[in-house]
Amino acid sequence: MSFTQTEISSVRYRGDHLLILDQQQLPEHTVYLNVTKIEHVWDAISKLNVRGAPAIGIAAAFGLVIWTKQYKGEDLPAFLAALQKQHDYLATSRPTAVNLFWAIRRITEAAAKAESVAQAVSLIELEALLIQKEDEETCRKIGEHALSLLKNGDALMTICNAGGIATARYGTALAPFYIAKEKGWNLSVYANETRPVLQGSRLTAWELQANGIDVTLITDNMAAHTLKTKNIAAVIVGCDRVAANGDTANKIGTFGLALQAKALGIPFYVASPLSTVDLETKSGDDIPIEERPAKEVTHLAGKRIAPEGIKVFNPAFDVTPAQYISAIVTEKGIVTGDYKNKLPKLFQEDQSS
Amino acid sequence: MSFTQTEISSVRYRGDHLLILDQQQLPEHTVYLNVTKIEHVWDAISKLNVRGAPAIGIAAAFGLVIWTKQYKGEDLPAFLAALQKQHDYLATSRPTAVNLFWAIRRITEAAAKAESVAQAVSLIELEALLIQKEDEETCRKIGEHALSLLKNGDALMTICNAGGIATARYGTALAPFYIAKEKGWNLSVYANETRPVLQGSRLTAWELQANGIDVTLITDNMAAHTLKTKNIAAVIVGCDRVAANGDTANKIGTFGLALQAKALGIPFYVASPLSTVDLETKSGDDIPIEERPAKEVTHLAGKRIAPEGIKVFNPAFDVTPAQYISAIVTEKGIVTGDYKNKLPKLFQEDQSS
Repeated sequence: MSFTQTEISSVRYRGDHLLILDQQQLPEHTVYLNVTKIEHVWDAISKLNVRGAPAIGIAAAFGLVIWTKQYKGEDLPAFLAALQKQHDYLATSRPTAVNLFWAIRRITEAAAKAESVAQAVSLIELEALLIQKEDEETCRKIGEHALSLLKNGDALMTICNAGGIATARYGTALAPFYIAKEKGWNLSVYANETRPVLQGSRLTAWELQANGIDVTLITDNMAAHTLKTKNIAAVIVGCDRVAANGDTANKIGTFGLALQAKALGIPFYVASPLSTVDLETKSGDDIPIEERPAKEVTHLAGKRIAPEGIKVFNPAFDVTPAQYISAIVTEKGIVTGDYKNKLPKLFQEDQSS
Repeated sequence: MSFTQTEISSVRYRGDHLLILDQQQLPEHTVYLNVTKIEHVWDAISKLNVRGAPAIGIAAAFGLVIWTKQYKGEDLPAFLAALQKQHDYLATSRPTAVNLFWAIRRITEAAAKAESVAQAVSLIELEALLIQKEDEETCRKIGEHALSLLKNGDALMTICNAGGIATARYGTALAPFYIAKEKGWNLSVYANETRPVLQGSRLTAWELQANGIDVTLITDNMAAHTLKTKNIAAVIVGCDRVAANGDTANKIGTFGLALQAKALGIPFYVASPLSTVDLETKSGDDIPIEERPAKEVTHLAGKRIAPEGIKVFNPAFDVTPAQYISAIVTEKGIVTGDYKNKLPKLFQEDQSS
């Protein structure tokens, strides 16, 4: 199994080492960390050099692969015991990332089927490649479905980074841009900078530019004027959680974009892998909104930009009610309108047509 | 005539010198420039230490007052000729600021009525104080009218800086907060930081905090979530130009705020002195939108925050169509609904009731 990627990607497996894109140094420096030890992977996850739930899981899985390549010994039970220790070690790198636990559990479960150390090493490598491949395929399908809502030449708008560097490849909201490019289409996009942490300018603008996609950067408060004057065909965003009724939590600013798009008659699309649809959450009211430190708002690049002691409200996410969402685009297909009845069906049947 | 101001003000006349608040150093340092020469006033206007059209006019008028206090000589024609030279000199400090020309012309016209140098010096001082006093009264009336739309305890939202430091006192959109405080009311306000130049965080948050008004800073993309969850009674903003049909140009982000307020059923008020209502401009379509350098978006405090060579769209203003404006608040009263027919009447009669 081989992977050829011309695009920027967060994690590249090179047989005996990994290249991990250091997202902490973006956009000033494009640096790939040369990762040859499992301890380096732990550091890269812990220090947020690699971010985005799918990308973290992939990095961790390959971290175990690298460890197996360096393992000396032929005794299978000893190997499996040592692997479990490494699994537990990586699990401490970022204790709340669900994809991390899920990915490294897949690795140990794959190894459990082996009859020799050599076979275990092979199965582990295969499983890590599979995790990466499946995520890439999910993103690709989301991109293809999203593209069916668009046409060649369209200009879109997005916020935050739901891009290739947060996943194996393609991203979710950014997937249609990459698929469009493969098809020879021209899609262009306005990227909202996404204060306070600037994922839009630091990551999305950088990633799209690096991949040759026509991207224009705006500040968040330029969205309405841009939507009105730049003939925007649609807004497309990622998401952190989709509730059973279609209400969607995503990066702060998404709700405002949805209100503005609705007022101006512009479709508003949410790109979401099925793994992000949470049928246990009834509605947006049940999604807690994390508030983060004031310093993210009052300081930038180490410099104070607001008066000392000022009160700050810093919600990291907001909830967009389903009524403002024109469509939710998943790897299993597009859902519109009656989300409450249609979303559960995606989990029951294949609707990828 | 004496003025006692406990509030922060942009220009304070002290008989033989001026204190000019250095808005370039805000919010890190609150520094009043001690201005003893007309050349200092020229510098302060030119280098944007003083900003806001009314504040610039006031600074220039007092610049001429200071010069007269230092003038030696009793010959009136020689004095008036020298005054005209100083007038022309100050006029070069910021060539496009209409209030600047208007204010210094009032000073030379006042001097023209004098019968001696001593009387001219007195008339000039009186005229400068009058310019300042009139602007303060205009702002105060705007604040009082705006307050009639609000009630004690209300939380509001604003963008950019339409505050006391841009005018003689009170500001326009911020005037109701100061008048409310004088009345013993509690109004609180969420200030949008106003990217890219951050007038909201650097100036509005600073000014309101310094004057003891309950202010909370948010980034621009937090507006919708804040409007929905913080029980905001109204949005109030200043303006750069109001067209004859009520369409209003103001700082970029205002249009988006208006769309969000409308969608959430929250009133949206524009505070505007009559001098900003331009009946010659038919509608917002006739207002050109200035685009400014990309560097304002890509750099902050000298540091790059976006990738090298990224395309940027940086409109400095946007236009809010009249249909989204619940009321325009002027010193002559409040206008709602049929702006096209009601705005001209403000210029014909006193509607300050």
